[in-house]
Amino acid sequence: MPAFEYKLLKTDGKARLGEVHTAHGVIRTPAFMPVGTAATVKGMRPEEVKALGSDIILGNTYHLFLRPGHELIEELGGLHKFMNWPGPILTDSGGYQVFSLADSRKITEEGVTFRSHIDGDKKTLTPENSTEIQRALDATITMAFDECTPYPAEVDVAADSMRMSMRWAKRSRDAFVKREGYGQFGIMQGGMHPHLRKESMEALEKLDFEGYAIGGLAVGEPPEMLAEMTEVCADLMPTDKPRYLMGVGYPSDIIRAVLAGVDMFDCVLPTRNGRNGQGYTSEGLVKIKLKTFERDPSPLDPNCECNTCKNYSKSYLRHLYRADEMLAGMLITHHNIHFYQQLMQTLRQAISDGNLQEVATKLLKKVR
Amino acid sequence: MPAFEYKLLKTDGKARLGEVHTAHGVIRTPAFMPVGTAATVKGMRPEEVKALGSDIILGNTYHLFLRPGHELIEELGGLHKFMNWPGPILTDSGGYQVFSLADSRKITEEGVTFRSHIDGDKKTLTPENSTEIQRALDATITMAFDECTPYPAEVDVAADSMRMSMRWAKRSRDAFVKREGYGQFGIMQGGMHPHLRKESMEALEKLDFEGYAIGGLAVGEPPEMLAEMTEVCADLMPTDKPRYLMGVGYPSDIIRAVLAGVDMFDCVLPTRNGRNGQGYTSEGLVKIKLKTFERDPSPLDPNCECNTCKNYSKSYLRHLYRADEMLAGMLITHHNIHFYQQLMQTLRQAISDGNLQEVATKLLKKVR
Repeated sequence: MPAFEYKLLKTDGKARLGEVHTAHGVIRTPAFMPVGTAATVKGMRPEEVKALGSDIILGNTYHLFLRPGHELIEELGGLHKFMNWPGPILTDSGGYQVFSLADSRKITEEGVTFRSHIDGDKKTLTPENSTEIQRALDATITMAFDECTPYPAEVDVAADSMRMSMRWAKRSRDAFVKREGYGQFGIMQGGMHPHLRKESMEALEKLDFEGYAIGGLAVGEPPEMLAEMTEVCADLMPTDKPRYLMGVGYPSDIIRAVLAGVDMFDCVLPTRNGRNGQGYTSEGLVKIKLKTFERDPSPLDPNCECNTCKNYSKSYLRHLYRADEMLAGMLITHHNIHFYQQLMQTLRQAISDGNLQEVATKLLKKVR
Repeated sequence: MPAFEYKLLKTDGKARLGEVHTAHGVIRTPAFMPVGTAATVKGMRPEEVKALGSDIILGNTYHLFLRPGHELIEELGGLHKFMNWPGPILTDSGGYQVFSLADSRKITEEGVTFRSHIDGDKKTLTPENSTEIQRALDATITMAFDECTPYPAEVDVAADSMRMSMRWAKRSRDAFVKREGYGQFGIMQGGMHPHLRKESMEALEKLDFEGYAIGGLAVGEPPEMLAEMTEVCADLMPTDKPRYLMGVGYPSDIIRAVLAGVDMFDCVLPTRNGRNGQGYTSEGLVKIKLKTFERDPSPLDPNCECNTCKNYSKSYLRHLYRADEMLAGMLITHHNIHFYQQLMQTLRQAISDGNLQEVATKLLKKVR
């Protein structure tokens, strides 16, 4: 069983080419993690997710806790076996989803009490049981339980929130059962306030996590602020551990964050937009429902080699989408995950070649 | 371009092992045709449909006529290219669907006027335009336009309906553009009345179709009557042309019809039930939503080698189904099409081995 280890292979400016070695395989970084909320990357078979270049996927603790339950998944052999994904899995802590339940949750120092969106049952998540749930799921990477500070937040509010998250980080770390090849990431908070981000990172480093995440970004702030704060945060992070920017994002956000030295990303956009008939392409976002594509024999992206683009026209995809056929979501999601993973491969190659700035500048002219 | 030709390879009792040679490839018979109503076998990629042993699929003229329209599909290169299925495609005539629109259609000698279920537009299908639509779709096998006689029907009603269908068969045949490797099938009607079936078959034979279908069965009559009438009809059909029993059916219906000498089948059951969480297995129909499967680590069918059964537990499939995840329908549909195509392969092998009666008797004890 390999140790959980980050290997920095090369830098280009602040950007990093690396590998995260884990009990379930190697993650090439910068890496994009498709989101598999309910133990499935929606509309895709796991072998397809893998074949498109995904080394790791994300699972949602909140959803799996409520249904089918972490105890059931543990009994069935863990999330890897349950969903037929033998590779690395990162699980979030459930905090983000719980805080989104604005009207039906109560936050105390102990944790968060909330009502399940499925059956209305009262449930509680704390640093301790979030960490235990993630262990039962057999997460390769466990995330600390934190509060995602809303945007905008006054400095006092952001500070109080961050400091509670740091106390929760300590409790999460204490509850984490160390196993060879498994890791736990601490999450930096502090809103849009650099001095709070610094204080947060210092608190986390004392707990010696296997990696660190930037939380509380991509929460509604303008893209320039996201890019600026990402760089502020990445500059604060140690160089010998992986750096994960949570919930990001648009291709342009990812490119800017890679330039700033971030290693890992996750986002529902390629899968959700796939189901909503929106394709990421070398020519921008394509909304397949548009009348203009009614008789268009060209593929979703003329510069793409994926199964969808090799075999199907925009006209066909539009027909499937309008007829509410499952295959529409399946084919466009396939393309979108291919697009995101090709983007990551392009960025990794550019760091390796030492021309990331040039490649990124070109890409940023084409993508959103 | 090969001629459209039926080759009878071997018989075992009344059962027939054969091949239908077409412009788009060979169909091994007895054959099951998965239903691709709206230019997609719901929830499956075409390469997957093929890999599971399907030589031919069915498309629905009614649906494609209304959306996206046969002219669009012709402009995009025909249905094969449009949906990325290069193999043979049989299209129905649209009649059956139109007659199902009980309250919003009017039947005359000319044809059927109806309102679209999509936008309420008034449309007409006749023997002539149904045949033309199927040509525009580039159907490998075109079906004659007929009236599906309801069950039960008094002899006079069934006779009148059948005789109109025979006049429509003549008009369909006249409208058919003969092309090398393409064929048109006439459809026998006559309700549950053997003498009307005989009259119908004699009328069709004069038109020298490339194949013949049994229509008006599996419309609500008891299974024993379906089996009995299938045999009556098959006995009336010529031996040098393929025989197609429309809309059938349950595995047991298919087995009995193969024993009676039928070559081709189609049915929505494996795909529709796949989406409804019902799996056909060697141990009978499995309703995956049942609580009893909550923690069941065994596959849908312990005697199955399909991708679904090799990689996923009943517990996982139940979770996906309850969470309304697309993958539930994808995985169970995959299994069901595999089950149906394995059944056909077993029946073909048994005819080849000369022990169909024995194999069929065993199978009929296990399947519904």
